[in-house]
Amino acid sequence: MAVETYLEIGEQAEYSRRISEADVLRFAEISGDFSPIHVDEAFARTTPFRRRIVHGALLMGLLSTTSTIVAERSMRRGAKGVPVSLGYDRIRIIQPVFIDDEVTARYTVETLDRDAGRTISRIEIVNQHGALCLVGSHVMKWVTPA
Amino acid sequence: MAVETYLEIGEQAEYSRRISEADVLRFAEISGDFSPIHVDEAFARTTPFRRRIVHGALLMGLLSTTSTIVAERSMRRGAKGVPVSLGYDRIRIIQPVFIDDEVTARYTVETLDRDAGRTISRIEIVNQHGALCLVGSHVMKWVTPA
Repeated sequence: MAVETYLEIGEQAEYSRRISEADVLRFAEISGDFSPIHVDEAFARTTPFRRRIVHGALLMGLLSTTSTIVAERSMRRGAKGVPVSLGYDRIRIIQPVFIDDEVTARYTVETLDRDAGRTISRIEIVNQHGALCLVGSHVMKWVTPA
Repeated sequence: MAVETYLEIGEQAEYSRRISEADVLRFAEISGDFSPIHVDEAFARTTPFRRRIVHGALLMGLLSTTSTIVAERSMRRGAKGVPVSLGYDRIRIIQPVFIDDEVTARYTVETLDRDAGRTISRIEIVNQHGALCLVGSHVMKWVTPA
């Protein structure tokens, strides 16, 4: 049974946010990841990065927000199933995001598979200088009641 | 120039945590992802899941902790570079994690590429019933001063 997602190829969602030191410290508490490269400025200064970098998984969280914008759009337009995250393909962190950077997470629907009730979308994080920091794909699936 | 990671194939790290409602709400604040499937119990009851599910990106955060355990082990054993996350391959969310589930994130080194200064590791999230909830690969790279 085909699933009507009410989405179109090329359709986008964006979410911009300045990532504060508090965001990074709260993310460390929730995730348990207190790597010094994220939370210890003195250590970070000794690395080739010279500053603390933001957790990659926190950036994935911003992308999760863009997928939710698209999912809610689909439901508002009348989709029958509930769109949920099925996974991610070939995520690459191209350059680090630093504390106080303002990044934009962008989600672009690339493939619509109505038979499988599934979309594949390009995901990317761009910083305030327009540099691409993270790229990959996200798979969303429309789950219908059994 | 080859990079000595001081890690071995098959080497593991684990991190277990009960994911509380507060964790999910704080993650929503940091990431901006207030999808009702994560934060609205009344909505979640109308879905095939019947309960709020934990953000996939929060689970990625627990896996980030396991990669940090392995990275710190490498540095403590004398590695010259700083191990950082290069990305993730073929992440699949196999079944949902619910609020109050106690999950274990597990990281297993699978491939050591000393020439590229890079490891590929299997990552997985297992719930308190032993069910595999998320699976994929993580790529770590040892960055040396220019």
